[in-house]
Amino acid sequence: MPWVKVLGGVVGAAALLGLGIILGHFAIPKGANQPASQELDLDPEILETVMGQLDANRIRENLRELSKEPHVASSPRDEALVQLLLQRWQDPDSGLDSAGTSEYEVLLSFPSQEQPNHVDVVGPSGDILFTCRRSEENLTKDQEAPDVLSPYAAYAPPGTPQGLLVYANQGSEEDFLYLYNEGINLQDTIALTRYGGVGRGAKAVNAAKYGVAGVLVYTDPGDINDGKSLPNETYPHSWGLPPSGVERGSYFEYFGDPLTPYLPANPSSFRLDSANASGFPPIPTQPIGFEDAKVLLCNLQGNSAPEDWQGALGCEYNLGPGFRPDGNFSADRTASAVAVPSDGNTLPHALPLLPAPTSLPATSQVNVSVHNRLVLRNSSNVLGIIRGAVEPDRYVIYGNHRDSWVHGAVDPSSGTSVLLEISRVLGTLLKKGTWRPRRSIVFASWGAEEFGLIGSTEFTEEFFSKLQERTVAYINVDISVFANATLRAQGTPPVQSVIFSAAKQIPAPGRSSLSIYDNWIQYFNRSSPVYGLVPSLGTLGAGSDYAPFIHFLGISSMDLAYTYDRSKTSARIYPTYHTAFDTFDYVDKFVDPGFSSHQAVARTAGSVLLRLSDSLFLPLNVSDYSETLHSFLQAAQQNLGTLLEQQSISLGPLVTAVEKFDEAATALGQHISALQKGTPDPLQVRMLNDQLMLLERTFLNSRAFPDERYYSHVLWAPRTGSVATFPGLSNACSRAMNTTSGSAAWAEVQRQLSILVAALEGAAATLRPVAEL
Amino acid sequence: MPWVKVLGGVVGAAALLGLGIILGHFAIPKGANQPASQELDLDPEILETVMGQLDANRIRENLRELSKEPHVASSPRDEALVQLLLQRWQDPDSGLDSAGTSEYEVLLSFPSQEQPNHVDVVGPSGDILFTCRRSEENLTKDQEAPDVLSPYAAYAPPGTPQGLLVYANQGSEEDFLYLYNEGINLQDTIALTRYGGVGRGAKAVNAAKYGVAGVLVYTDPGDINDGKSLPNETYPHSWGLPPSGVERGSYFEYFGDPLTPYLPANPSSFRLDSANASGFPPIPTQPIGFEDAKVLLCNLQGNSAPEDWQGALGCEYNLGPGFRPDGNFSADRTASAVAVPSDGNTLPHALPLLPAPTSLPATSQVNVSVHNRLVLRNSSNVLGIIRGAVEPDRYVIYGNHRDSWVHGAVDPSSGTSVLLEISRVLGTLLKKGTWRPRRSIVFASWGAEEFGLIGSTEFTEEFFSKLQERTVAYINVDISVFANATLRAQGTPPVQSVIFSAAKQIPAPGRSSLSIYDNWIQYFNRSSPVYGLVPSLGTLGAGSDYAPFIHFLGISSMDLAYTYDRSKTSARIYPTYHTAFDTFDYVDKFVDPGFSSHQAVARTAGSVLLRLSDSLFLPLNVSDYSETLHSFLQAAQQNLGTLLEQQSISLGPLVTAVEKFDEAATALGQHISALQKGTPDPLQVRMLNDQLMLLERTFLNSRAFPDERYYSHVLWAPRTGSVATFPGLSNACSRAMNTTSGSAAWAEVQRQLSILVAALEGAAATLRPVAEL
Repeated sequence: MPWVKVLGGVVGAAALLGLGIILGHFAIPKGANQPASQELDLDPEILETVMGQLDANRIRENLRELSKEPHVASSPRDEALVQLLLQRWQDPDSGLDSAGTSEYEVLLSFPSQEQPNHVDVVGPSGDILFTCRRSEENLTKDQEAPDVLSPYAAYAPPGTPQGLLVYANQGSEEDFLYLYNEGINLQDTIALTRYGGVGRGAKAVNAAKYGVAGVLVYTDPGDINDGKSLPNETYPHSWGLPPSGVERGSYFEYFGDPLTPYLPANPSSFRLDSANASGFPPIPTQPIGFEDAKVLLCNLQGNSAPEDWQGALGCEYNLGPGFRPDGNFSADRTASAVAVPSDGNTLPHALPLLPAPTSLPATSQVNVSVHNRLVLRNSSNVLGIIRGAVEPDRYVIYGNHRDSWVHGAVDPSSGTSVLLEISRVLGTLLKKGTWRPRRSIVFASWGAEEFGLIGSTEFTEEFFSKLQERTVAYINVDISVFANATLRAQGTPPVQSVIFSAAKQIPAPGRSSLSIYDNWIQYFNRSSPVYGLVPSLGTLGAGSDYAPFIHFLGISSMDLAYTYDRSKTSARIYPTYHTAFDTFDYVDKFVDPGFSSHQAVARTAGSVLLRLSDSLFLPLNVSDYSETLHSFLQAAQQNLGTLLEQQSISLGPLVTAVEKFDEAATALGQHISALQKGTPDPLQVRMLNDQLMLLERTFLNSRAFPDERYYSHVLWAPRTGSVATFPGLSNACSRAMNTTSGSAAWAEVQRQLSILVAALEGAAATLRPVAEL
Repeated sequence: MPWVKVLGGVVGAAALLGLGIILGHFAIPKGANQPASQELDLDPEILETVMGQLDANRIRENLRELSKEPHVASSPRDEALVQLLLQRWQDPDSGLDSAGTSEYEVLLSFPSQEQPNHVDVVGPSGDILFTCRRSEENLTKDQEAPDVLSPYAAYAPPGTPQGLLVYANQGSEEDFLYLYNEGINLQDTIALTRYGGVGRGAKAVNAAKYGVAGVLVYTDPGDINDGKSLPNETYPHSWGLPPSGVERGSYFEYFGDPLTPYLPANPSSFRLDSANASGFPPIPTQPIGFEDAKVLLCNLQGNSAPEDWQGALGCEYNLGPGFRPDGNFSADRTASAVAVPSDGNTLPHALPLLPAPTSLPATSQVNVSVHNRLVLRNSSNVLGIIRGAVEPDRYVIYGNHRDSWVHGAVDPSSGTSVLLEISRVLGTLLKKGTWRPRRSIVFASWGAEEFGLIGSTEFTEEFFSKLQERTVAYINVDISVFANATLRAQGTPPVQSVIFSAAKQIPAPGRSSLSIYDNWIQYFNRSSPVYGLVPSLGTLGAGSDYAPFIHFLGISSMDLAYTYDRSKTSARIYPTYHTAFDTFDYVDKFVDPGFSSHQAVARTAGSVLLRLSDSLFLPLNVSDYSETLHSFLQAAQQNLGTLLEQQSISLGPLVTAVEKFDEAATALGQHISALQKGTPDPLQVRMLNDQLMLLERTFLNSRAFPDERYYSHVLWAPRTGSVATFPGLSNACSRAMNTTSGSAAWAEVQRQLSILVAALEGAAATLRPVAEL
């Protein structure tokens, strides 16, 4: 029964929000075996117990179950996993206080089953000379599972463009400009691009500006396999991407449900007409494997592509347009091409071309036939709650998405396996009565992340006010293990210290003499003016479900994983990412045999979670924002100072604002130290914690970036400008640079500066003693 | 020394925010004579003490001082009053914990002193036949004070239009449409309008749409004096508006500094070019007194105006265009007109007409010469703080503006007199060590309100995050006494109960056997489905400084005053409003002799302030919002239901959302009762209070009304639609009504419904038990 959700009776009744039973809110349990003192603080013994109980083998078994079958968003298996999560979180011995689902009706994009997408080389007489694979090679049986979704570019519009092939490198604006400057007429061509450099959707957006009619995207073995491309060098013989592997993905440029921006996608919600929705690729686009890309690319004519456009397919990459007369698709070979009836599988085969070309082209062309369909589907989040003993209205949210493109063993099930193990261990302590956190913990399994962080975004839209007011932090563990070398953490400055504290107390997998922290610092580090050499935290883009939390709600967020030794591989991501080869067997054999890296991530995330939920004083070090502000300020002064001076725009107010922030943060730090030495009353701690929790919110300005959907954090909005400083300032300067003095673009620079100064002044005001204004 | 602020050394040092000394934040005083228990609750004895000490005579003396001289925003006297307030709030025996100023650089509009505005009747040959007064008659010496600002329409653009006069009633859209339908060519005319009906600026906006070149505005004695218009019937012989009185006012359509929307108007802030600023009247506009209006209006030719356009000037009001041939300005009288040199005072006098008319008009015309200037000026807010003993990070803000148009005895000094008396009584208790509130109290004296709530709006922009997070409620007392009949309160539903509680315990002035509440219910009442007959609370528009607090920040707000017996007067406001006759003498003799109404307002506002700042449980009854929601819902169902059904738009989700709100509010009410019976710990109370405080915030949606600057409260945004329901829905339906099915206007109706449903669902979510989602 596809799309029909079978919920337990108890959950079904919680129609209001899809959330299940709520265990007695009015009476916070006291006495008995549950501590409820207002001074309840992090218990090192509990922390140690939790660390000890997080079990690598259970994580492995979770992963086996979660990745047993393909479970793309809204598929029957996705819904079955909703039930699995509910069952775990409602388990009487290891479950949470409550669990339930929250369902949205969202716009997804799927390839047509009746009319498969296909990519063909078409000879001058209209014959099909070559057809790309429509599915990945069945190497380990997993690839022939019934629900394996054919490779496609989600949200790419249907269409059957045909034209001469050009090679456009990564499909960036600069790449197309290069082709244009080379004198190549891009009008009505098909552009073959490689993954990397710019976002998926951007390749088609950039291409369309030059009149390109269709886009192909492939993964170059130079970018993913450290150059290896032969079948016996790749999975199942190594972790490498097999020649037939294709990276699927969303080509939607924003995030959230495309039809209901800023509103939860409830059934009754106002929806844009999908023809009016923005952010979809403008032209048909299709991803292919490097096996097929090689056939196309190695037969191109034209000038040789620049050196940094070359890859590892074993031939010289030319620019096109069109194929070499001496290659596979020369005109004299087209006579032998035979049209065969389409059965959707046989290769090569012919399909009617619509509309039929009125005059046959002189050389072979490439036809990209995309038949993707937009469909409204129900997608669920699963939410599980442990009620806080002392401050139930303060939430620490820990989430990951559930949906995958195919089996999704690494992405996202490696994260969900860890999530389930953490919730099991905490749930068991809870049910035994051994422990209850000071604050509430919310576990979340988001739906439809792969299509654009949809489940998490709709959740933030639905509970906007409440989450903003009450959420202490958001922890995201999506892909928990890319590789086994080191921890990698991304986050905003206030979470740095709690991650450091956790990482210092956990042994590094495989290097048990070192802590995760000591191992980490060997791979990613930076010199902090305050702390000296420390592991470096990455910044948060929009790569996973933390995006709506940090950019839209202004909640301090982090993303944790174990990852590569970059001296050993240059793969842009783990090789089978978004392919039918991302399977349990792949993880078990190549990604993390023994699952000790999974366990390390579980311990790190679990420790961070406990520290955030249990510590009397919130372990958010807001003064760590000073380093960011100074680094951004310095970059602005060094790289934009002269330019701004020429326009009589002063950075002085920004300097002052940063200084005010410093002063307020330092004074607050002293206040915290003083309080920690004494015996503060519960309200004093609460007030202080509110200052710490809410600092991140002060950086939001919903009017700062009107063209960037959801982005309102003035420090972490997307930066397109070249200077690594405050994004609004950097982008505005970039745009103004070639305009005249007094232009609207220069006015926007001034506006962005004022927005920034107001935000930093507001941030400082929030950190100052609370009875000051 | 104009514009130079002389601050005390201590205050001057608090450069950061212009706020002065902050008394020891880190150590909340304990023991000694200041109670600091976390259970600190409202003390009835303190309340009684405060009520007893609020002194009518001191209020009178405050008023005498405050209204001694004209003190328009940014004038020397305005700055002197800044010092007066600082001095009071820094008084060692009756001052507050801290006080300081916060200065903004804002765009104001003033008439030119060198080129006075003037309004003349110009005969066919260009001679000046009549000139309106340029200043009010000197009846009580106050009117000849050096700083009396000539009447003008602030922000009306300069220009010297001349044309035939038409009478356009109140200048509403309907009024101009009526003239148009009467076949009157409005192109290049001057429209004479009366105050009332629509906002000041709207008269010019509506006029300009019909090609009108200039607008005059006067106050009809029928609208302000219950028809009385003779000198001996008006001030100084009664409270009536003298014939020469002119209502000044801001004609800016938005509020806040016009050049820095959404940003604090700090000196470094980005400013719009004033040519690009929006919201100014499009055509020259000038207000005049009814003495002059009578000369113009009673000489108009054309059809008689409709009955409800007629007024009390003692003649038939005709529509124009142009003057009667048999009246004062007939063509044959123009020969006798003598051009006299302009000295700015002599009447009548001639001014060169620019450009000179190429062909002389057949009848006399009216020339409106406006020479207003836009100027950047410094304007200060004064802020005084009493630090809360237990929850210093929770603010109760009590404010009023300081600036007036002339002496401003009623508006705003009647409110400031009360403000100063309340702060004196509380300050005295504070300095004696008798009392310190549980929460912080912030007293505010706003600058430049008359120009468009500028000081308060800039304050909310500067401290946006912090105020939203921490403010319990905003109390506004602007004009404290319009008249002596009854209390009048405006506010959002959560403040109803605390006003009722206060009003029940205070005797009504002049009717000491009745409480203010019992007296009030006789004048304004409604039948509540929950409580039966209760005094009716008005809603909050944008008439005073509460506007940015409720509409922009979503802070529960109220405005309190004593006002008229509507059975005794139909005056649209107190007669000398915004004129040079609004003086101490006027208040002392006619508005509130004995100042007992001032005292009653001081007691009511003081009691509300103490209840909000001292009560353990916040006295905000959120369930009172249910009545509003049901009333809006019912209006929507009855008046829009059929229309919406025809468009297949269901109100079902809205009904469900209102029900959810009801349920959550009721359950929360039971929870509060249960807690109040027990001995709740301080954090339980804090969590509950946070729910109550933050409810109002959940109704905000910054994307709901993109064209309405600052308005984001989905229940209280301006309603232009005719149905008294949710404003977004009402307005959208109004616009969609005459469009076809499937139009963008109908899509907007659906969007507004979804915004509303999401807000109500979010509100309900905030009221539910805190560990539920």
